[in-house]
Amino acid sequence: MASTAKAAVDAVQDGVKKLGLKEGTESKKKDAKAPPSAKELFRAAMTNVLERRLFFIPSFKIYGSVAGFYDFGPPGCAIKQNVTQLWRQHFILQESMLEVECPAVTPEAVLKASGHVDRFTDFMVTDVKTGDCHRADHLLKAALEALLEDPKAALTPEKKREAEDVLARLDELDGAGLGAALTQYGVKAPETKNDISAPFPFNLMFRTSIGPKGDLTGYLRPETAQGIFVNFKDLLYYNGGKLPFAAAQIGQSYRNEISPRAGLLRVREFTQAEIEHFVNPDDKDHPKFESVERLAPLLFSRVLQTNEAKQPEAMSLGDAVSKKIIANQTLAYFIGRTYLFLVGIGIAPERLRFRQHLPNEMAHYAEDCWDAEVECSYGWVECVGLADRSAYDLRAHSAASKQPLEAYEKFAEPRFEKVLVAKPNKAAIGKAFKKEGKPLQEALDALTQEDAACIKKSFDEGKASTVSAGGRDFEVTPELLDIKLEEQKLSGRKFTPSVIEPSFGIGRIIYCMFEHAYYTRESSEDKTVFRFKPAVAPLKAAVFPLVQQPELNSHARAISTALTRAGLANTVDTTGTTIGKRYARTDELGVPYDITVDRATIDGDGSVTLRERDTTSQVRIHEEKVAGVVQQLVSGELSWQQVLDTYPAQQAAAEDDS
Amino acid sequence: MASTAKAAVDAVQDGVKKLGLKEGTESKKKDAKAPPSAKELFRAAMTNVLERRLFFIPSFKIYGSVAGFYDFGPPGCAIKQNVTQLWRQHFILQESMLEVECPAVTPEAVLKASGHVDRFTDFMVTDVKTGDCHRADHLLKAALEALLEDPKAALTPEKKREAEDVLARLDELDGAGLGAALTQYGVKAPETKNDISAPFPFNLMFRTSIGPKGDLTGYLRPETAQGIFVNFKDLLYYNGGKLPFAAAQIGQSYRNEISPRAGLLRVREFTQAEIEHFVNPDDKDHPKFESVERLAPLLFSRVLQTNEAKQPEAMSLGDAVSKKIIANQTLAYFIGRTYLFLVGIGIAPERLRFRQHLPNEMAHYAEDCWDAEVECSYGWVECVGLADRSAYDLRAHSAASKQPLEAYEKFAEPRFEKVLVAKPNKAAIGKAFKKEGKPLQEALDALTQEDAACIKKSFDEGKASTVSAGGRDFEVTPELLDIKLEEQKLSGRKFTPSVIEPSFGIGRIIYCMFEHAYYTRESSEDKTVFRFKPAVAPLKAAVFPLVQQPELNSHARAISTALTRAGLANTVDTTGTTIGKRYARTDELGVPYDITVDRATIDGDGSVTLRERDTTSQVRIHEEKVAGVVQQLVSGELSWQQVLDTYPAQQAAAEDDS
Repeated sequence: MASTAKAAVDAVQDGVKKLGLKEGTESKKKDAKAPPSAKELFRAAMTNVLERRLFFIPSFKIYGSVAGFYDFGPPGCAIKQNVTQLWRQHFILQESMLEVECPAVTPEAVLKASGHVDRFTDFMVTDVKTGDCHRADHLLKAALEALLEDPKAALTPEKKREAEDVLARLDELDGAGLGAALTQYGVKAPETKNDISAPFPFNLMFRTSIGPKGDLTGYLRPETAQGIFVNFKDLLYYNGGKLPFAAAQIGQSYRNEISPRAGLLRVREFTQAEIEHFVNPDDKDHPKFESVERLAPLLFSRVLQTNEAKQPEAMSLGDAVSKKIIANQTLAYFIGRTYLFLVGIGIAPERLRFRQHLPNEMAHYAEDCWDAEVECSYGWVECVGLADRSAYDLRAHSAASKQPLEAYEKFAEPRFEKVLVAKPNKAAIGKAFKKEGKPLQEALDALTQEDAACIKKSFDEGKASTVSAGGRDFEVTPELLDIKLEEQKLSGRKFTPSVIEPSFGIGRIIYCMFEHAYYTRESSEDKTVFRFKPAVAPLKAAVFPLVQQPELNSHARAISTALTRAGLANTVDTTGTTIGKRYARTDELGVPYDITVDRATIDGDGSVTLRERDTTSQVRIHEEKVAGVVQQLVSGELSWQQVLDTYPAQQAAAEDDS
Repeated sequence: MASTAKAAVDAVQDGVKKLGLKEGTESKKKDAKAPPSAKELFRAAMTNVLERRLFFIPSFKIYGSVAGFYDFGPPGCAIKQNVTQLWRQHFILQESMLEVECPAVTPEAVLKASGHVDRFTDFMVTDVKTGDCHRADHLLKAALEALLEDPKAALTPEKKREAEDVLARLDELDGAGLGAALTQYGVKAPETKNDISAPFPFNLMFRTSIGPKGDLTGYLRPETAQGIFVNFKDLLYYNGGKLPFAAAQIGQSYRNEISPRAGLLRVREFTQAEIEHFVNPDDKDHPKFESVERLAPLLFSRVLQTNEAKQPEAMSLGDAVSKKIIANQTLAYFIGRTYLFLVGIGIAPERLRFRQHLPNEMAHYAEDCWDAEVECSYGWVECVGLADRSAYDLRAHSAASKQPLEAYEKFAEPRFEKVLVAKPNKAAIGKAFKKEGKPLQEALDALTQEDAACIKKSFDEGKASTVSAGGRDFEVTPELLDIKLEEQKLSGRKFTPSVIEPSFGIGRIIYCMFEHAYYTRESSEDKTVFRFKPAVAPLKAAVFPLVQQPELNSHARAISTALTRAGLANTVDTTGTTIGKRYARTDELGVPYDITVDRATIDGDGSVTLRERDTTSQVRIHEEKVAGVVQQLVSGELSWQQVLDTYPAQQAAAEDDS
């Protein structure tokens, strides 16, 4: 077994030990017993490099770590910075979005209105003896998979189909459904094999208390989006009252996962980058759609998911909109922009697909949803969600806060429209309900067209209508409320904008990017490389004095200073180790360019060696020019091929002396 | 009263209303009654602009806000981004620091070790009838100030001196001292005038629970520093085992303040940028000290604070170190770098001082501490703390986690030193304690030099020594432990590094920068301007078509695209309002350059107008050149004077037509 693969297996086993944490985590027994698959070996080998070079590491390691928390070390932190800055440039700057930054600590009222307090839950079961917690769907899934794989189970075709069916519908099951299935298949707690409780919902938000009195409940936000919605009114005003406009936020979000696993993919604190694009629901065309309509990413539409082949197909976004596969231009525009962003930072386009939500996956109010899914060793992973959420969020906050969250559209020409005019009969209301009629009066004054239509329908059917106000129900008759259809001249209208929400999970994107960038050289399995795009790479260049000489060191430092001045993160390695070893070390960090200073730099023509990571080809460039060339390479103004064509080649003699 | 001042007073009163929040906040009665001071008027006028233009706004406004939480709106967010990116460039990139990013949610063990669980408290009193909470020191301060200002109090000189003395020593008072003073001065709850409870400590950390079982307590970190300390071992390894090195973290920290006030200066969630520079305690010189030694910031040393004049003095950092006013070069180096950073982003150097902590302000382990204080309408505000914390933090985490957090120093020449060699007598221990002797054996094997010296002292005095191990005390005699002083050849030594910690409060720095940048034009008090440095400004340029014509708009958009391509945030204003109004709008946002496209651009020589914000002077530059010139102005390659010298002037006719 080659040393890399051995390290990989060690790392797997190490990981199992390391995850023995203070709170209930699910059994890894199956993983530990079964021989690791090729994907697991690949992942373990890569994770070994990532943790050893401090791209990321389990948080609070000296205290034994806590599942679901990771630190980014120096190279990981630099990559995350680069990715978020590229996101900011690609979305916020290029699209003139309004960026906001809101606190993570959020009072209950906001998350009550958004529905998170009541519905942001996973179903949990507990071990009746130990009290350990498990995700109900995870246990059921593991049990069904084990059953289907077990030759001793000897399932009848009918039983097999039934189990497969439950597995396929797992995400649709509610608490009762999960409970029934867990009972039917006799699922026990992993490891202890004790009985488990019935599933019950567990809210995934971290709860805290704001202020010293302890009477104001707060939560760590489960998403950054709500901070944008509650500021809608101010943002619309900032934008001169005009639609469409987009606001964006990059920041930490929190989910108290029941049993976090899958490394960076399911963590309890993570960075989101979310956009809320507010638009007139009657006009979801996008002025810049033309710029993306010829892009043809892999689309995995509802139809393709349900037909025989179950394969995504490349299709131009223009066609997808005109064939009504994607609901509107704005949603398709963001799919295109997301595609460009992900491919731009190093996601392999053939391992990126946009999967449409099936009707049962979507919230009732959503118009259309697509997930950008990236293939990695864990399978296809959702990295970006793109949803047309209609007017749901603004309506919810408007109702809860009693603040109108609306936009105004001035008609090009005044329109004559029939509208329902509702006139409460103040005197009659006063007579019927005395002082208690006041909230009713207010409610009737504020009737929406929809409410008025509903009441009118009752009246037309000869029935009274019930109106809730001030905490009680009132019976309203035509004597109390006069409703008429009248033609009015309208110069404009108020409406609640629709919102189209692209939501990026930055950690997941970076993790998938790691997998797509990682490879080992053909010459040796031990030589690992990350083929990061230069703009994403943690360091843009490393500078090496070929041997340990003060004179070479001082030239190297001068080059480093020039690189820093050009805004390029770099390092100088004066260890004097063989140049091959130093190349290998920087390859492992994904540094795209290495610069070597040798005696010829000082005694000869002043040139240094510039080496490109993936081709390992080298040229000689004057030491005063090299920082400028690297800057152009990183910004994309120059390609490596152009450099090869311009500067004399250097034979790569020392590459393999490690 | 001019309209700005009127708006200011309205804003003050508005603020009072707005702060009527759900949890106990302190009385604003005094403020509301007394006429606002010039400083308060200035602050209110500026805050009015900042909130109106969405630099920052109280969070969750539509739900009534919660004290101590603010959102950054689009221009504030852009400024914060620019400031943190400049910080990253100035510190992390230029000093090759190791950046890390750790979660805000932190398990109790970490913050227990750091001392925050036990000691991160403020003293609180409650209103005995309403239960409302108040900070004890705030109430006492307000009461003493009112007493000293009240002519009716008719204090004797002695009583006056006594009250002044308590006021001066406020920060030193513990719970008992605060309680005694509150009783002595008969302090009641503000507004209700009810009795108050005795002061008790309130922990300022937000508490939460990690995982579904609820048995793992977590807190939101009160500072980012601990994430660096717990990673020290890995970071040292990453740095090749070499000292000194610095690690840095930018991120959110949380303090559940009892009664937040003073706007952005005292909030419950804020951004910190912290550096931990690890250094050999025997060598705190800094290799780059020379680059800052001639800088002469205002230093407010202990001596200057206690002498008659109580005024800081400008002094070169070189002198301050050689006169031992600043403890060492490394601390002085960071004072110099901090000075350059703050002045670089727009803090007025004459309103910036470095104040040394008095001995009673410093923790017992600290070697020396200096705060960068900035003068603003609230007085002198601590924006950066610079502390030589010795080895305290690493020792605390090493003790709690039982992980050695040490560095190794290889001596240039081997040294012969007398060391205590302690040899436990295994047989005798076994005989004396049987199986229970095992933990004692382990403890004796791991004795430090300090512990061994202590035990030897007892032995030399003819006494046994007590050693705690495995939860019990053992009596140790020379029969059980042989301790001798022996000369050993040492090739190096292990030691716990000292840490020098510069800690930046980003929100406070930005707030002070706002105050230093804000002014009104001499021509009109209504014309407000922020003189942001171009690198800090939220937008670098605004582009105006002089009048509403499609042709002008398209040229304006082309210029905007060129600016965006150069990475310069910009906006196009096609409203066609008077050019003076559009200038005023961008001045209020602190946009340094305005570009106006007019008929001459199209029909004439292709030139546009470029106007500088503070001088309001204008030149004409060709439309294809203007983005490049703005880029050079923003990067500092070009000064505005050079632009004036190079390009033909444009008469500023339209400036005052608002």
